[in-house]
Amino acid sequence: MKRIRTAFQGELGAFSQIAVKQLLGEAAVPLPCERFEQVFRSLSEGTAGAAVIPIENTLHGSIHENYDHLLNFDLQIQGETSVRIIHNLIACPGVKWKQIRRVFSHPVALNQCLDFFAAHPQLEKCPFYDTAGSVKMMMAENLQDAAAIASSMAAEIYGGKILKRSIEDDRQNFTRFFLLRRRGDSSAAPGEGERKTSLVFTTRNTPGALFRALSAFALRDLSLTKIESRPLRGKPWEYLFYVDVLADTRDSKMRKALGHLEELADFLKVLGCYPRGK
Amino acid sequence: MKRIRTAFQGELGAFSQIAVKQLLGEAAVPLPCERFEQVFRSLSEGTAGAAVIPIENTLHGSIHENYDHLLNFDLQIQGETSVRIIHNLIACPGVKWKQIRRVFSHPVALNQCLDFFAAHPQLEKCPFYDTAGSVKMMMAENLQDAAAIASSMAAEIYGGKILKRSIEDDRQNFTRFFLLRRRGDSSAAPGEGERKTSLVFTTRNTPGALFRALSAFALRDLSLTKIESRPLRGKPWEYLFYVDVLADTRDSKMRKALGHLEELADFLKVLGCYPRGK
Repeated sequence: MKRIRTAFQGELGAFSQIAVKQLLGEAAVPLPCERFEQVFRSLSEGTAGAAVIPIENTLHGSIHENYDHLLNFDLQIQGETSVRIIHNLIACPGVKWKQIRRVFSHPVALNQCLDFFAAHPQLEKCPFYDTAGSVKMMMAENLQDAAAIASSMAAEIYGGKILKRSIEDDRQNFTRFFLLRRRGDSSAAPGEGERKTSLVFTTRNTPGALFRALSAFALRDLSLTKIESRPLRGKPWEYLFYVDVLADTRDSKMRKALGHLEELADFLKVLGCYPRGK
Repeated sequence: MKRIRTAFQGELGAFSQIAVKQLLGEAAVPLPCERFEQVFRSLSEGTAGAAVIPIENTLHGSIHENYDHLLNFDLQIQGETSVRIIHNLIACPGVKWKQIRRVFSHPVALNQCLDFFAAHPQLEKCPFYDTAGSVKMMMAENLQDAAAIASSMAAEIYGGKILKRSIEDDRQNFTRFFLLRRRGDSSAAPGEGERKTSLVFTTRNTPGALFRALSAFALRDLSLTKIESRPLRGKPWEYLFYVDVLADTRDSKMRKALGHLEELADFLKVLGCYPRGK
């Protein structure tokens, strides 16, 4: 089995690393990065052979920074997966629930466990830069009055003990991730089953322009699963549109749709065609 | 002239207060709030008679939190304006350019002046919670080795001196703001000239659903100026769509378009109809 160094944002044990495992299994060698731009740069410059980035969350919406990087770095989406965000209360081994007074985690994770904090008013919320990083710090400092909120993978990696599982308010909390490779590198055979194509385009700023652009897909019964708009730099109040289409670029209908969109769009770039995730 | 207490996010002198001035002139009595939710709540509960919120920026895109609040609070958009974001280097009176070693501002503002910092490597970037707040703090502590990056209005309010004007990297940096009132309260006569209508809808999750929804406007030559998607809570991978249409709800074509969209949408809410901003 060929090992692939795979970049992701966050500490070891971050939710992105769960996505790495789902997408590449045991082949992936984790390469944690501090910022998203470093993740893209590592892959682009060859330090990493693959990268995994979050693209949207069912509670918070799109991760817009990564849409911008997808346009600016010339990489290819080769897969997608979604991870259910399960927050666990993790403490140092031997520490008992009654000892806990402070809880460390990323502010977003703390805010996703408000019912838990309301039920346990003795606990102080302590914002930290990273979910998994809060487990790492708690273990390194052997804190006896504190816990951290993070994934079960983070508990496993740093040797923490899960005191309470799944303390998040909303169980419909999923994050969708993309697997990126350099153009030309292919991880696996194209494979069977449904595929998705992600693309980005701009239209002339004329009435009905977006409607006409979408007609390229709608008139061929090709289904859009997502549309996202982002500002076009240097052209105030004009937009880039990112869409995901449930179709394979090798299918004749989708090839025609892309040709049709090319006629209508000022700019069009296919970001990748990949197996639909579960 | 009737004075209107107007809520906005940030300290006195924030860019939002410039929008307040553009939208309501001298009638507005500023009511600074710490968080966006407080802005909506102040208006909703009657502490304020109007509110002004940023909705999108030409470099960063939409302010999604405010899209979510527009849905959750039952208020009405009654106006829009856009403000060019001009960053100025402000110091205490008497402090000279050569004395400056530290520069305080909101991280987003610091990141919008990277060319300036690259040209002056002796300056340390110091993140602060607010642009105008950094001027307030600098003046209160009478800092002699520091400057702040903020609006000219912030310099004026706190008595700071502008050392360098317009140090932002990109002059195409505009923020669009909405004026909100309670439903039923009207600030001014409907007025002449072009109007915009903002609305939010959901569609059934079927192929071509968004295309059909947009046809309600496109087939009547009504122009969309903006579309934004946000996750629908509790329904993973389904979306709310926010659109701005260049049309007046009192026009017969627009009334028919809204009737048509109502047939196609699972949910539809008009957020406001207001004069198009300059």
